[in-house]
Amino acid sequence: MISQSQSSAQSVSPFGVGVGPFFNAHHSPAGAFATMTLGCKGPLGGLGMELKGPANEGIYVGVESASEPGTFQALPFFEGRSSTLNAEDYDVEGLSDYQFPNLVSLFSDGEVHRSFGACLDTWTAGDLTFRIASPFGPLPDPATASSAELREAFIPAIYVEVTVDNRHGARARKAFCGYAGSDRSNSMHTYSMDGVTGIGQGREIAIGSRDDVYAGVAWQIEAILTPRHEENVDFMLGNVGLLVGTVPAGEIKTFRFSVAFFREGTATSGMPSRYLYRRWFDRVEDVVVAGLDGFDCALARSQSVDARIAAKLDPTRATMVAHTLRSYWGATQMLDIDGHGPLWVVNEGEYRMMNTFDLTVDQLYMELALNPWTIRDVLDMFVSRYSYDDSCRFPNDETLHPGGIAFCHDMGIGNVFSPSGYSSYEQAGLKGVFSYMSFEELVNWALSACLYVSHTGDQEWAAKHREVFSKVVQSMANRDHPDDSSRNGIMGLDTARCKGGKEITTYDSLDASLGQARNNLYLAVKTWAAYLLLEPLLQDSSMAELAHKQAVRAASTIVDSADTEGLLPAVIGEGVEARIIPAIEGLIFPFVAGRSDLIDAQGEFGVMVSALARHFSLLLRPDRCLFADGGWKLSSTSRNSWLSKIYLCQFIAESILGYPADTKADQAHLAWLMDEDNAYFAWSDQMLTGKAHGSRYYPRGVTSLLWLTEPGSPALPQIRSVLFG
Amino acid sequence: MISQSQSSAQSVSPFGVGVGPFFNAHHSPAGAFATMTLGCKGPLGGLGMELKGPANEGIYVGVESASEPGTFQALPFFEGRSSTLNAEDYDVEGLSDYQFPNLVSLFSDGEVHRSFGACLDTWTAGDLTFRIASPFGPLPDPATASSAELREAFIPAIYVEVTVDNRHGARARKAFCGYAGSDRSNSMHTYSMDGVTGIGQGREIAIGSRDDVYAGVAWQIEAILTPRHEENVDFMLGNVGLLVGTVPAGEIKTFRFSVAFFREGTATSGMPSRYLYRRWFDRVEDVVVAGLDGFDCALARSQSVDARIAAKLDPTRATMVAHTLRSYWGATQMLDIDGHGPLWVVNEGEYRMMNTFDLTVDQLYMELALNPWTIRDVLDMFVSRYSYDDSCRFPNDETLHPGGIAFCHDMGIGNVFSPSGYSSYEQAGLKGVFSYMSFEELVNWALSACLYVSHTGDQEWAAKHREVFSKVVQSMANRDHPDDSSRNGIMGLDTARCKGGKEITTYDSLDASLGQARNNLYLAVKTWAAYLLLEPLLQDSSMAELAHKQAVRAASTIVDSADTEGLLPAVIGEGVEARIIPAIEGLIFPFVAGRSDLIDAQGEFGVMVSALARHFSLLLRPDRCLFADGGWKLSSTSRNSWLSKIYLCQFIAESILGYPADTKADQAHLAWLMDEDNAYFAWSDQMLTGKAHGSRYYPRGVTSLLWLTEPGSPALPQIRSVLFG
Repeated sequence: MISQSQSSAQSVSPFGVGVGPFFNAHHSPAGAFATMTLGCKGPLGGLGMELKGPANEGIYVGVESASEPGTFQALPFFEGRSSTLNAEDYDVEGLSDYQFPNLVSLFSDGEVHRSFGACLDTWTAGDLTFRIASPFGPLPDPATASSAELREAFIPAIYVEVTVDNRHGARARKAFCGYAGSDRSNSMHTYSMDGVTGIGQGREIAIGSRDDVYAGVAWQIEAILTPRHEENVDFMLGNVGLLVGTVPAGEIKTFRFSVAFFREGTATSGMPSRYLYRRWFDRVEDVVVAGLDGFDCALARSQSVDARIAAKLDPTRATMVAHTLRSYWGATQMLDIDGHGPLWVVNEGEYRMMNTFDLTVDQLYMELALNPWTIRDVLDMFVSRYSYDDSCRFPNDETLHPGGIAFCHDMGIGNVFSPSGYSSYEQAGLKGVFSYMSFEELVNWALSACLYVSHTGDQEWAAKHREVFSKVVQSMANRDHPDDSSRNGIMGLDTARCKGGKEITTYDSLDASLGQARNNLYLAVKTWAAYLLLEPLLQDSSMAELAHKQAVRAASTIVDSADTEGLLPAVIGEGVEARIIPAIEGLIFPFVAGRSDLIDAQGEFGVMVSALARHFSLLLRPDRCLFADGGWKLSSTSRNSWLSKIYLCQFIAESILGYPADTKADQAHLAWLMDEDNAYFAWSDQMLTGKAHGSRYYPRGVTSLLWLTEPGSPALPQIRSVLFG
Repeated sequence: MISQSQSSAQSVSPFGVGVGPFFNAHHSPAGAFATMTLGCKGPLGGLGMELKGPANEGIYVGVESASEPGTFQALPFFEGRSSTLNAEDYDVEGLSDYQFPNLVSLFSDGEVHRSFGACLDTWTAGDLTFRIASPFGPLPDPATASSAELREAFIPAIYVEVTVDNRHGARARKAFCGYAGSDRSNSMHTYSMDGVTGIGQGREIAIGSRDDVYAGVAWQIEAILTPRHEENVDFMLGNVGLLVGTVPAGEIKTFRFSVAFFREGTATSGMPSRYLYRRWFDRVEDVVVAGLDGFDCALARSQSVDARIAAKLDPTRATMVAHTLRSYWGATQMLDIDGHGPLWVVNEGEYRMMNTFDLTVDQLYMELALNPWTIRDVLDMFVSRYSYDDSCRFPNDETLHPGGIAFCHDMGIGNVFSPSGYSSYEQAGLKGVFSYMSFEELVNWALSACLYVSHTGDQEWAAKHREVFSKVVQSMANRDHPDDSSRNGIMGLDTARCKGGKEITTYDSLDASLGQARNNLYLAVKTWAAYLLLEPLLQDSSMAELAHKQAVRAASTIVDSADTEGLLPAVIGEGVEARIIPAIEGLIFPFVAGRSDLIDAQGEFGVMVSALARHFSLLLRPDRCLFADGGWKLSSTSRNSWLSKIYLCQFIAESILGYPADTKADQAHLAWLMDEDNAYFAWSDQMLTGKAHGSRYYPRGVTSLLWLTEPGSPALPQIRSVLFG
């Protein structure tokens, strides 16, 4: 938990050089695909469900002035004026007397301080404290957990406190919390139910409190804060809802609010589903109650998670870890699919593709550490519905060769499950973005499955998928070359589904250095790792032999591609001389799997590991893979760099290759996120020379959690231990 | 049904002077609070549910060029470019090859022709015809109708045809229909189910066909129309959905589409409800099927309704009648309230207040003529939940005097039912907009109830409400003066709920000439009518006497207020000398009730009727109540005029006072609606010197249906007969 006051001791703020506390961050329950996004000035955050970006709603939190009663100061999360207009649509001649003078001013930037953790986000200004808790804990496995355990884990609510320290005050002062909803169909409303006073919009969002507050709706919050007539506070034509309490003179008082999200009906098309929380909740108001019931526990858990992260990392990394965790949770969706049962879905940020496999493989470390069943269920769904059998082709040759099993890029987009065997993303006939990723996703399934088994020891699952493991090895080998004797261990054929296009990698919008899949160095090392981790899981010894042989070939191909200086080409044998940091990505898998033998410089693959280390050692220079600010540039030929992958490669550099942490780079990376053009999108992945141009509002950054670990003991249990104690 | 070709025979287009066919109009099923709004150029229409204005979505309808195969011409309901962008968010380096050149051009304005009726809206351009049917028929009374009857009447679908006359074509040509949805949570999707090929968004909107079409999603419609690879047509990342068919050479071919709307979950807050159609439909796709099943019937009904209206009215009035009917249906919502049962709700256009009583009383003629049970149920709900007992006060005097029963302005707003006894709108302490309308709504309940009884002869209902009738009379009299001997028949006290403010009339945003309720001439005449129509319904003879006496007093007060010229003041006895056309509004009620005795110049109230006639005869001059363009100005002192009320007063002038139709005014009124700044909002009510500034996208204009009647026989059966045959 990094506070701004800590930062004042340093020359650099924990939020970046010259950056104040005003950046958007998610505040989300697990699995509700919902978020209170907040932090930028203006109506740029809000309460969003299933959105590709912030809801762009005003959030109103403030307190009555101690010195000027009847005037108020508020945090700057809405437009400068407190009026939300629209009134002139009703009063076309402007004849009316319902309007209020502006009584609410914003705290100045310098008055506002923020302490930002993974679970607690605390804002202070004057004697006002606004604290938002969005804790997370181990999510119980729906396959085995009790209904009560599941209910508690998946309450779609977050927790908000507004505290006013009026101990030195001579008068009672009002404090308030509310928002201006953006639902197009439903007006804002107040409610009173089960001892809770609340505001909300539609059946989807509600904020409620059991404290002594009153609720109002208005165009101008002054109409609620200083009503001329008490009965006017609920002016239902307005679009701002507010909850208002009073802090007596001489007291410090905290008001607690539960912010609840709720999707009542069918949540998805393609495969109909409901949110899992529908098993226990029928109304958003019931979620509010559950949130209030769990408030103490939520705060305690939040504090302990944040404290453990802060104890482990420097402020720069801790801020990024917090930010990435938040953006991850905001994208998560715990569905209950008709005729199937629970499925964990991570939505791909602004793109909202569902369980994009090349994200899953990067979120793997966090998910295995925290909730390995999510990986298990996603892998199962990829096998049962999102795999296919294809042929493959050499470039510029229409001859079909045997392929085999492959996996889809994703399971759908924007609450629409794609048809069986197809992703939402992949298109035929392309050579760049939106082409197929068959080989990479095949490797991703293999690596995810292997790490799932190595981490959990779930032999029953491994046994169930024994045949799939074999199919995967055969398919990988087939995509190398149809003729075993011509194989070099790495991908050589594109899926026939490309129809003459070519497969790409997850770095879809990068240039050929990382975009092209065939002969790609990054993919080659992952391929090598997949073969070796699959090897012991194969029942058929001939398949195990094939896997090992292919790994040896891949290693050899990689090593042989080095130039005299020791640099490896981004695409092997195709004259693409770009230099890429993600050459080392594949080393993570044996490391996390505990197979130090495979990455031992003295071991069977020592030569390749050394070649990769040598390659990497040559990259971090301004003319290759460093930006001017010291940030890492994944490819020497592209200005497009991806933070999730940078975090991952930083970890590999430090924990496997033995480099010290690059704190200058860390500061540059945080500065990218805090850039005034980027801060709106919470955590973003793709950065074009430090500007977020794609993959914004994105969940993939949780590769940063690897920073929580130290070499010497298994990484994933360490992550779990830091987060859960 | 008025077509543009008819217009060419006239100097003035039926859509107004110099106005083309490009104005938005609703296309809505009954009771779904849903609309396909369409007509303006650009993405300014769309498929909206429960919205306060158009959804602002692009609608794509077009055909392959006969002369240049592989290129297309489309109606101009989307942005000039066919691309819907966003692709650069995925392809930040712009490296990709998925983009298509623009192959779709828009028909030029001169090529596009529109034939616009109440149920059919037909667009032709070249050999393309795009026809939308949104028929309406008698809605069965939920209290007595069979489930099958109700299901058929409330199918939340409309009917679309795309026809291409390719009889002279040498090649097969594609035709298409689709839209770019604006749902924030859900991506566009295609589906295939039950023999239907469809597109849709979320669980709320779908368009499907049983014809030989294929479905696709893309950013650029070219990607669906001319895919480089067939399997690419469903590119789920896109935001435009399209259905595409092929018209063989030498044939004329029509593709039929059902456009379905569906709200699955709880529809309202305050009182939870679902849409009534949820009794029969569980999925939007099932609604599509029901729509396709009913296609022939829908077309036949549409044609006959439109033909009967066209036969009855000149094109100018027929266009306005069609427009007002459409805007009415788009605002209707047939709910099924938990623990209560069905309730008909009309949402107040851009304001979305629910069953605003001062709209109900104007929509009364249409609703009684077509579906009198809607009025019955609304009146019952006003009694049971939206009435209250209040005291009242003289101006500038805090003494409370007995009041009595009063009714709320509305039942809620934007899918939120207001608390029992309160509207969403009325606020204490005001003198203008948002103040109480207690007296006017009391009178409105009385008049609506009386006309319901006189039209339906529902004596059982009348008997049930006998006590309410008495309470209403007593309450009206109490609000005149606490002392009977001081009463003058018209409103003299404001509700105590005003807290010192003053009551207003439905003309809330007008100046004092129509805005103030107390002593208001417009309200005085309605008050007079209410007393007289209530009189025979009262069991207690003393109450009947009171009612009659009060009517006599009111008439006398009105007559005595005339100046030497015969002009009546807008507010009696308060020095407000403005002159108002709606002085004559109250005459409509005895007329429609068949009480010609009350408005007979020789009858008991002949003097008052003559005084009103005299007053009206002095108004239609440029210095009083005419705008420069010949349009009617409701108040001599305000530039704000309301079309719904103008229509009503035109009818009174013609049918009761014997004036000929003011065709110059009709043309001015239509020109207001067709003004390029106004045409976006479909039908709007409040016009500031011809510009729509409030009450836009509004249902109240159906007072125009009175034009369908002729003096001599009861009005409401005539309306029914024209609309339903």
